[in-house]
Amino acid sequence: MSEFRYAVNVLPKPGILDPQGRAVELSLPHLNVANVSRVRVGRRAELTVTAGSEAEARQVVESLARELLSNPLIEAYAIELLEATSSTDSTKATLA
Amino acid sequence: MSEFRYAVNVLPKPGILDPQGRAVELSLPHLNVANVSRVRVGRRAELTVTAGSEAEARQVVESLARELLSNPLIEAYAIELLEATSSTDSTKATLA
Repeated sequence: MSEFRYAVNVLPKPGILDPQGRAVELSLPHLNVANVSRVRVGRRAELTVTAGSEAEARQVVESLARELLSNPLIEAYAIELLEATSSTDSTKATLA
Repeated sequence: MSEFRYAVNVLPKPGILDPQGRAVELSLPHLNVANVSRVRVGRRAELTVTAGSEAEARQVVESLARELLSNPLIEAYAIELLEATSSTDSTKATLA
């Protein structure tokens, strides 16, 4: 078994109102920032999956991203693999 | 001038209570998911900076991440460069 650390990035779909992004944009002039645009604000979740393969782990993350972490009607998600730790590798590392 | 698209990932610092992450963990058994652990939930912002160089653009993002997008007492942020579009490059691309 290996451990896979993933990030799931969830952002409002293009065209969908983004009140948090708008709030950031409206704050920019007060901070004297004039060269920042197209702000979108969403969520980021990080989690660890224990599985036999990356394909198996990714399937779990996909289903959580769809069913728990995002609202597919108004949000899009992207999955990032951050780290993979194989139990075999760590044994080897200890033996080496 | 060039355009730089960045992401700012904001997560609760290690050891800081994360009620959203905890809520996700508590939902997992109801979804029959037993192999997911260490869930952290934070924010992700994406934004475009117009600047003369990447160093200059990053300075703007750093200051927004610190002053507007995160609470440095309880949250840590990480900055990712997603895309860089140079005006010069796009002119060349048009002329080619």
